[in-house]
Amino acid sequence: MKVEIWSDIACPWCYIGKARFTQGLADFAHRDQVEVVFRSFELDPASPTGTTSEVVPMLAAKYGMTLEQARQAEQRVAANARDAGLDYITDGRDNGNTFDIHRLLHFAADHGRQERLLDLAYRANFAEQRSIYDRDRLLDLAAEAGLDRDAAAAVLDDPAAYADRVRADEREAAALGATGVPFFVLDRRLGVSGGQPAEVFTQALQQAWDSRSPLTTLAGAPDADTCGPDGCDIPQH
Amino acid sequence: MKVEIWSDIACPWCYIGKARFTQGLADFAHRDQVEVVFRSFELDPASPTGTTSEVVPMLAAKYGMTLEQARQAEQRVAANARDAGLDYITDGRDNGNTFDIHRLLHFAADHGRQERLLDLAYRANFAEQRSIYDRDRLLDLAAEAGLDRDAAAAVLDDPAAYADRVRADEREAAALGATGVPFFVLDRRLGVSGGQPAEVFTQALQQAWDSRSPLTTLAGAPDADTCGPDGCDIPQH
Repeated sequence: MKVEIWSDIACPWCYIGKARFTQGLADFAHRDQVEVVFRSFELDPASPTGTTSEVVPMLAAKYGMTLEQARQAEQRVAANARDAGLDYITDGRDNGNTFDIHRLLHFAADHGRQERLLDLAYRANFAEQRSIYDRDRLLDLAAEAGLDRDAAAAVLDDPAAYADRVRADEREAAALGATGVPFFVLDRRLGVSGGQPAEVFTQALQQAWDSRSPLTTLAGAPDADTCGPDGCDIPQH
Repeated sequence: MKVEIWSDIACPWCYIGKARFTQGLADFAHRDQVEVVFRSFELDPASPTGTTSEVVPMLAAKYGMTLEQARQAEQRVAANARDAGLDYITDGRDNGNTFDIHRLLHFAADHGRQERLLDLAYRANFAEQRSIYDRDRLLDLAAEAGLDRDAAAAVLDDPAAYADRVRADEREAAALGATGVPFFVLDRRLGVSGGQPAEVFTQALQQAWDSRSPLTTLAGAPDADTCGPDGCDIPQH
């Protein structure tokens, strides 16, 4: 069974939701037969690259709150994070354009390091003060995830590298009806929106598992011309 | 809608089936909304790397035919290829281990060049005498497909590069019940085996299109904690 998780590194509910999902998956009987892949979703694709803003003042401006109200809202998110076993700092975090980070996550996927890099980037963004919108920091994280630092730098330095993969993910999210993240899609049949409690994910995995069906085969198709381990069909005329 | 095509570069029905599918897709009303991806399947994963065998004698030995019978069988396959608009030579072709070519096709996929490289490799294998099991030839094809020759060489020289992607494709084929190729899977719902006539593919595309369904949403899930373009849900406690 395949679970696709659309998320953005700047999204606290994605950070928390991933931990809750992981817990829910651990409680699922067929967890060994579940493949998880992460897909890109930018919360704010229009945000300028190369600049960042501090999270609490940004939230205050966005929601029309005082700084103190924004800080309290962040503290309630932090409490949710801690309940999920995650560290979370509310002060000194920054926010910026995540497109390059998504490109790097696709590069990591091609080297079997996607989830490792994602976990490191989440921790760096939500639990540590040094900005992940800094090129050197990102490359440190890539190296820590087991990627070749120079190859990762080449990806960051080529704006076209993996850009199509990010955009394809975002088109798919829209086609599937996702308007926010985290967004979980189980075998392309069952959608779960948001950082649900762990037991909801376990239940969703079970529901998707129970509704598995083999592929329908096209009815009435002629005998196939195929090749297999024992050779190829030989045409009679 | 997504179409996944499992195939092997050494498989004549894959070469012919791709042309027939492409024709069937051209006749499908919603062709602009179809994404096609190619997946790996090795007909003979145990065949030794670094050596090749000539196709006609190999077929004669495999099927217990005389050389002349094997040549006639190949000529009938060639006639099928020509009917699909493809060149096909019956003499002087060789056969070998395709794992490295599959790895290179995944590398090409990451640069948006997969189908271009696949088409060039098919043509090289079935319509030209120079072997595709030759490293320099493969790199020529990669460059012709628009890939960086040095980067492609680095992929070929690193046996681990993209190997997991090839094996994951092959595991998925087995899980989906494919025992031979070409094998077409439409939106993970409808399977079509073999190099069917173009009109069968058009019909299959229509059938899969008509049976599209939106994602089921998990019933009874709590209100989600999500982030979207307008911001994140703020917890009340």
